[in-house]
This record gives sequence, structure tokens and C-alpha cells, in this order.
Amino acid sequence: MTRGFYIGRFQPYHNGHHSVVETISEEVDELVLGIGSAGNSHTRHDPFTAGERIMMITKSLVDSDLVTYAVPIEDLDRNSVWVSHVQSMSPEFDVAYSNNPLVIQLFTEAGVEVRQSPMFNRDVLEGTEVRDRMVEGGDWEKLVPEAVTEVIEESGGIERIQRVSQTDSNGV
Amino acid sequence: MTRGFYIGRFQPYHNGHHSVVETISEEVDELVLGIGSAGNSHTRHDPFTAGERIMMITKSLVDSDLVTYAVPIEDLDRNSVWVSHVQSMSPEFDVAYSNNPLVIQLFTEAGVEVRQSPMFNRDVLEGTEVRDRMVEGGDWEKLVPEAVTEVIEESGGIERIQRVSQTDSNGV
Amino acid sequence: MTRGFYIGRFQPYHNGHHSVVETISEEVDELVLGIGSAGNSHTRHDPFTAGERIMMITKSLVDSDLVTYAVPIEDLDRNSVWVSHVQSMSPEFDVAYSNNPLVIQLFTEAGVEVRQSPMFNRDVLEGTEVRDRMVEGGDWEKLVPEAVTEVIEESGGIERIQRVSQTDSNGV
Amino acid sequence: MTRGFYIGRFQPYHNGHHSVVETISEEVDELVLGIGSAGNSHTRHDPFTAGERIMMITKSLVDSDLVTYAVPIEDLDRNSVWVSHVQSMSPEFDVAYSNNPLVIQLFTEAGVEVRQSPMFNRDVLEGTEVRDRMVEGGDWEKLVPEAVTEVIEESGGIERIQRVSQTDSNGV
Amino acid sequence: MTRGFYIGRFQPYHNGHHSVVETISEEVDELVLGIGSAGNSHTRHDPFTAGERIMMITKSLVDSDLVTYAVPIEDLDRNSVWVSHVQSMSPEFDVAYSNNPLVIQLFTEAGVEVRQSPMFNRDVLEGTEVRDRMVEGGDWEKLVPEAVTEVIEESGGIERIQRVSQTDSNGV
Amino acid sequence: MTRGFYIGRFQPYHNGHHSVVETISEEVDELVLGIGSAGNSHTRHDPFTAGERIMMITKSLVDSDLVTYAVPIEDLDRNSVWVSHVQSMSPEFDVAYSNNPLVIQLFTEAGVEVRQSPMFNRDVLEGTEVRDRMVEGGDWEKLVPEAVTEVIEESGGIERIQRVSQTDSNGV
Repeated sequence: MTRGFYIGRFQPYHNGHHSVVETISEEVDELVLGIGSAGNSHTRHDPFTAGERIMMITKSLVDSDLVTYAVPIEDLDRNSVWVSHVQSMSPEFDVAYSNNPLVIQLFTEAGVEVRQSPMFNRDVLEGTEVRDRMVEGGDWEKLVPEAVTEVIEESGGIERIQRVSQTDSNGV
Repeated sequence: MTRGFYIGRFQPYHNGHHSVVETISEEVDELVLGIGSAGNSHTRHDPFTAGERIMMITKSLVDSDLVTYAVPIEDLDRNSVWVSHVQSMSPEFDVAYSNNPLVIQLFTEAGVEVRQSPMFNRDVLEGTEVRDRMVEGGDWEKLVPEAVTEVIEESGGIERIQRVSQTDSNGV
Repeated sequence: MTRGFYIGRFQPYHNGHHSVVETISEEVDELVLGIGSAGNSHTRHDPFTAGERIMMITKSLVDSDLVTYAVPIEDLDRNSVWVSHVQSMSPEFDVAYSNNPLVIQLFTEAGVEVRQSPMFNRDVLEGTEVRDRMVEGGDWEKLVPEAVTEVIEESGGIERIQRVSQTDSNGV
Repeated sequence: MTRGFYIGRFQPYHNGHHSVVETISEEVDELVLGIGSAGNSHTRHDPFTAGERIMMITKSLVDSDLVTYAVPIEDLDRNSVWVSHVQSMSPEFDVAYSNNPLVIQLFTEAGVEVRQSPMFNRDVLEGTEVRDRMVEGGDWEKLVPEAVTEVIEESGGIERIQRVSQTDSNGV
Repeated sequence: MTRGFYIGRFQPYHNGHHSVVETISEEVDELVLGIGSAGNSHTRHDPFTAGERIMMITKSLVDSDLVTYAVPIEDLDRNSVWVSHVQSMSPEFDVAYSNNPLVIQLFTEAGVEVRQSPMFNRDVLEGTEVRDRMVEGGDWEKLVPEAVTEVIEESGGIERIQRVSQTDSNGV
Repeated sequence: MTRGFYIGRFQPYHNGHHSVVETISEEVDELVLGIGSAGNSHTRHDPFTAGERIMMITKSLVDSDLVTYAVPIEDLDRNSVWVSHVQSMSPEFDVAYSNNPLVIQLFTEAGVEVRQSPMFNRDVLEGTEVRDRMVEGGDWEKLVPEAVTEVIEESGGIERIQRVSQTDSNGV
């Protein structure tokens, strides 16, 4: 039995993430999706709460054969203990998937196997693109799984990201 | 669709918790199990990590018809914001289940419906009993679902709780 | 112009505190009432929020000739920086009033004048007595200024302290 | 009786804030001025301590008929619990005044009434202008109430902001 | 070259600690003394600051042939990341010395070699004894190295521990 | 006996720092080197852990006649208590050395003597230059003491800073 670990902010969970999960699913039996910066929400960069992101991931993967775990991981803001923090919050895993250089370096120093792939880069690009379209009223729905659209609409997510993205700031 | 929320420390997840989940399953379609004090581990009172507790819950409920979410919730140590914290970390829920007076008071002040039941008391009693048996070498296995036994054995949990329960303290 | 500083938890603000303020008012022109452990609430030891305690103090002193400031002070949990923390949160003051040995020691090491008086001891004793009566349904109203009774009743404070004081704990 | 809540950093409290308070005073009986980022000080963006800001506000409003409360609010750095945090630190309020989109969004999601007005925008513009003039030796005094000038001069605030605004950084 | 790590609170550094260091010095070339709970001070259990404890250790070991490092380690209050925290704060080490069951368990789970010895128990017993004598006016000087006596006297440490040990608490 | 305090991030300790220490050594008997932002590591701006920086300083100064202390100081992120924090973590000192305007302002407000010198500016310039060369494969070794080169090579520091400096970010 092999269990993988895939960390992301998932703001929101989109088709790029979904493709990565499909790719990984060929290599592992179970996959932990670590929801990074779990305590952040209500900003343009991090609009959705951890709870909303759990729903996006779980609903998008409900028909997948892969056994998955969606685990929120709050920031500790200290790189030197980050791997230990992740390991304590997550079901034990055998291999980590990431193209993030810091994540790769931290896991490598801790002796954890890391696998990379050029296609993993898609998710950062797409995350920004999805949020830009949300703010500007573009067609973001086609960039995310259908279940994600539902979660965002139920939570009033579009109004939220549009409002918090306004640059005016009245004294706070 | 009704979603419930059931908070506990689940140190470990035992038959008392399991019975509560079965009872709740008759009233809701989905259930979030909030794993409280998620950052605590390696003490007699809180021996297991959040990751280990996610495994206990998920494996114990794998054959249940109920849709469940195991969500670690780190302490914020501030009662006045606890409900907001829980709500941001958890998938949205309609009703909370608890017999804990503080939890009931906090949810009630925040306008969240809380349901209680005498049988919910079983889990505190049993949590202490299970940990006592682990420390003293008693028969703890019969108090927990079979899947929990496996998780604890794989993590070396018995040796851990026995060692950290020793009262000697050498200067830290 | 002399400004004094008087620190307390004010859980709740009671007649003992009120007498201390009257005594101090003969020595200073203005008085800062520092509300300690401002982030704590909803426990038997600390039932009321900082906002509720601000109301108790302000309403009780509304007819006083003394210029007063009610300033919530959150815990930093580090004795060595406590005086600096208090000084940054409070209007500048010339003298501190306390009978608490730790507070006296910290201010003294920092070169701040501290004044003590046997009567200051009343407030701790009365704080516990007031809370005990609240929990047990006794006559607590006669131990506090009338304005405090109103604040507590409006906030449902008696039900709150009675509920959180129950010793049963259901898994959190 | 209606109580309003007006949040700002008040770095420093200036004529723009003062006009907002006057406008609000026609709608409410009491007003809480929440001093945001209360723990910040000694930077160009946040030069003054919470204690100094309490003094600015209190002294500027001493002759006002409005009942006011100046309440320091430390940052929790977590948007999802910000409203609960504010509500626990502040006397209970009926309506919040803000033009800040994030603040509006957070209060709105929590079900708190928010009122906006174009003129509220003045305070951010003026806050930056006042600090720029302080740093560059310009005429900042005419942008703030007279009481604020006194507080800043007593605290050596001009020398402070000028020094911490220097861009050289020697290794910290 | 072998470097050891010896963790303690060193409140204060006493003859028991000194003997342990002498014993360890036969096995290693260099020794890191990790000063635990570095942020704590001004309580009966933790009277001295990290700076004072650095002085005690450094002055006591000035004539030792062993190369030593006195490194303050602030609490993170999370057992699962404690080893990573210690490793990031300390010069790299090959072996840890402790009789504390929790420390042994944490280092063992992290794959760090731990060495124990019955004599290590002396330090806890003596730490309490030294502090008791300080509070009660007994002969504590003979339980600590001469250099420690000097550090404590210069810092007014006896008056401090005596005052903060008084049980009266006036409202904070 | 005079003891000085010299604060820096020492990322890494380089020849500019070394010259400053030599200059200071003519004025004091002992010198504390406060290692700022001790909890930061694994970024381009802060690549090395506190433990690695302790080693750089200690090994570089092993032959110096000056008595030195290398003391890691974690950030508290609150300027108003920074001096108290530093004073509690460090052996007591008589004079602080800095050209950092914020540090000068904070020590001055707290009544601590600060000494400046134009040459102190070298260290910031050189810190950035050293890290740039590390990232770009330039000749950084000639900008640091020989002992520092050894520490960095043993810790794999060059590979670390090169990897974490890559701008690609895959979703964390």
C-alpha cells in the first residue's frame, strides 16, 4: 500500500489540481490532499475558508476510485518545523508530490521522497487565472470541476472575492 | 440535506464515539467529526497526533453509509472566537452534537442548534478508561473499533503513551 | 497632573474594586483601569468578555469626578515583557496600584512606582465570592455596583457562568 | 438606545476621523472607536502605540456630547474570526460604520448591519498625508485636532516617525 | 568529533547539572546546553530569565576543557514539532542526554540517539530543593557553583523569587 | 567590566560583521551577538537556521581575545516590547551597537545607550551581496571568514539557498 501527499492552497480546487490528482492516482493507493494556509480566507489571494475547500475537494473526488483525505494544515510560519507539522497533521505518507522549490527542499532535508513533474506547474498558473476571472466577471466555471462551482455559489464566494479585492481601504 | 457536527478529542476514537455516530446517523445525511486539540500529542491525556486520529476515524467508518468528514481543529485558546474558528475549518453544518457544557454554551450564544443525549456522556468516561488500560497494560482493544487497534499498533502508540506517562521529569 | 494605573481582571467589577478606585481617586487626577486577561471569557474563573467588563467599569464610574480609562489588556504570557506590553497599551501613567506580588516585582524591576494598601486585598476575595454566588444562585447583586447587575443581566451572564461551571466534559 | 462601532487604525486620529465621528453622532447615542492593529507601533505606517491613540481620541472628544469608548483591538491575523474577536473586545453595538471592503464583507457575512458614506474615504487619504508631513517636516498640525498635537509632542512622536522612516537597515 | 545535546530548564544551574556535564564530557568533544522554556521567568518554578541562565552556565564552565554552547530554546507548546525546533536552534548534535521520558520518546521517534543514566535524576530533585531554600531563606549557595551565586546576587534573584512565591494574588 | 550588545541577522556572518566586532572589541570586555529573526530559515533572505548561525559566529571568533556570547533571539513582532524581550534573552549589557534606525529608536526610548559608526553600514550591503553570489554561483567565500565557509558547506547551504530562491511556486 502506498500513500501519497499532495500539498496546495486549493484557492480554489481547479482542473489543474484535478489533473495532477489523476496523474498521481496511477502511482499510489491513497492520497492525502493537504490544504495549506488553512487559516487564511477572505482575501483575493486566499478567498475561501478551509471548510469550503474541504467541500470542493471531497465533492470533486466523490466518484474517484482513489482513497483520498482532505486535511487542512494551518500555517506555523517557521520553515524549520514545517515537515514535522505536516507529518503530525496528516495520515502517514510514503511520497510527497510537489514542484514548489521550498517544499521540495524541506522534504528532501527531512529525508522524505519527493516526486516532481512539469505538469504540476499548471496549478499555480490556473489558480491566479481562476481568481482573476472571478474578480473580473469572466468565465471561471470552465476552469474548475462542476462540484466546485456549486460550493462557491452556495457560499457566495464570487461576491466575496469581488468585494475584498477592491483596493480602497478605509482605515483598518 | 442535513449535515451534523460532532466535536471530540478522539484520544483515541473508541466504541463510545462509535455508538454516538451511529445514533446521529439516524438524524443527518452527512456528519463532520471535528478533531479537537489537533495540535496536541505525545501526552497521557492526548497521546495521538491529528493524522493518527484521522486514520482511526476514517478506517472505522469506511463501511458506514453515512458521508463523514474527519477535520482536525487546532486550539485557538480563546472561547469567544471558538465557534467562528470551527465554522471556518469545517464544511457548513446545520446542527451540533455535544454534551459538553462549554461547547453547548458557545454554540447557543452563536445561534447554532445543539442536540444533547445522555448517552453522549459515555465517550469521556471511556476515553479515560481506554488510556488507563493502555498505560497499565490492560485490555483496551475491546473498547475500540478494530481499525483503531491497527492504527495504534502501527504507530507504536502503546509504547508512546506508556513512556510519556512516567512521572519522572529530568529537567525540562 | 498625576495618572494612576490599576490592573485587575474585573470578573466582574465589584464593590471591592469600587472602593479601591475611590481610595485611589484621592491621590490621582486620572486613573487607567487595565482589564487583564482581556481575551479570556466563558469560564468559571473568567466568565465575562472584555467588552462586557468595559461596560461594567464605565457605567459604574459614570458619575465619578475622576477621569477614568477602561483599557483591555490581552495576555502575552511572558513576564519579562509584561510591563512594556502594559505601557504600550495604556495611556502613560505615573504610579501603579497593586497588591499582587508578581505585578509589584515586575513594575519595581522596571523602575515604576508601585503603591500598596491592605484594603486592596478585598478584591480577590470578593471576586471569588461573587462568582461562587452566581454559580450557586446566591445573592451576588449586593456585592457589585448596580450598573454591573444590569450589564450581567443583559448579557445572560448568570446562565453562562452556571453552564460553563458544570464539571461534565463531553470530549472536548 | 443605539450604539455604533467605528474601526480605524487612527495613526494618528485626524480631522477626517473627527468629521466621521461628528456625522455618526447624529445617528447613534453611543459610539465605540475600535483602535485596530493595537499591538503595532514604531513604524512609518503605524507610528503610535495603542495607549497614545487612546489619549488622542479621548482628549479630542472630551467636549463631545456623544458617549464614546476607545477600545484597542489587537490583530488576530485570521479574517474568519475577526468579527467574533471584535465583538468580544467591544461593548455590544448595533451598527458598524466602515467603507473598508473587507470589513464590510466580514460584518455582512456575520449578519451585522454596516453603514457606508463617501466621506468616510477621507480618513485613509488623510492618514497617509499626515504621516508624510510628519516625516518630511511639513505642516501636519492643521490636519489633526489640537489635542492630538499635544499627545504627539509629549510622546516625542515626530522624532520617532522620522527616525523609523529612514530606509537604512543595519542588519536586523 | 562528537557533539552532545543536554536539555534542561536550569532554574538555576546547580551542582547536579554540573556533575552531569562532567560525566558527559568524558564521552563528547563538544556539548550544547539547551536552555528550555527560555521565555519563562519571574515565577517560583522559573525564576530566572534566559539571559541570566546563559550567564550561570557560561561562567560555571569557563575553566572547563569542554567546548560548550548555551542556547536558549523558547517553548513552541507542540510536542510533534519539538525535535525539529530544537534541531534548528542548536548546533548540530550526534547524541542527546536526558532522563525525561517525553524527551526520550520524542528524540527516539525522530531517530536521534538518546543516552540515559540514573545520576541524571539528581538535577530535578536538586532544582526544586534549591528554589525551596531560596524562598525559605535556607542555604542554597552550597548547592550551586560559585559563579551561579554571583549571577543570582547581581540580578536580585533571591528577592525576586521570594516575592513572586507569595501566594496572595491581587486581581491579576 | 563593560559588556556590549550587537544585533544582526547574520545571514550569514561575514567579513563586514567581523570588522564591526573587531572595532567594538576595543571598547568592551565582553560582547553579546544577538542573532535576530532566529526562527527564520530556508528563504533567500534568511537561508540559515539559528543553530547554523551560532556555529558560524562561534567558530569565527574562537581565537578572539574578546569574550563573546552568540544568543538566538526569536521575533516577537511587536516593537513596543522588543527591548524587554532582548534584555530577557541576553546577558545584561551596558551599551548597544547598531546603525539600524528602528533599533536605535527603540533602545533610546528605553534609556539604553546606543553607539553608531558609519562602518557598521557595511554589513547590510555585504549580507545581500553574499547571498546574491551564493545564488548565482559567484565567489562568496572571500566575503566571509573561513570558518563560515565550512559551516555552510557542511549544511548543504548553497544548494539550499539556490533551490529556495527559485521563483516558481507550485501551490503552497
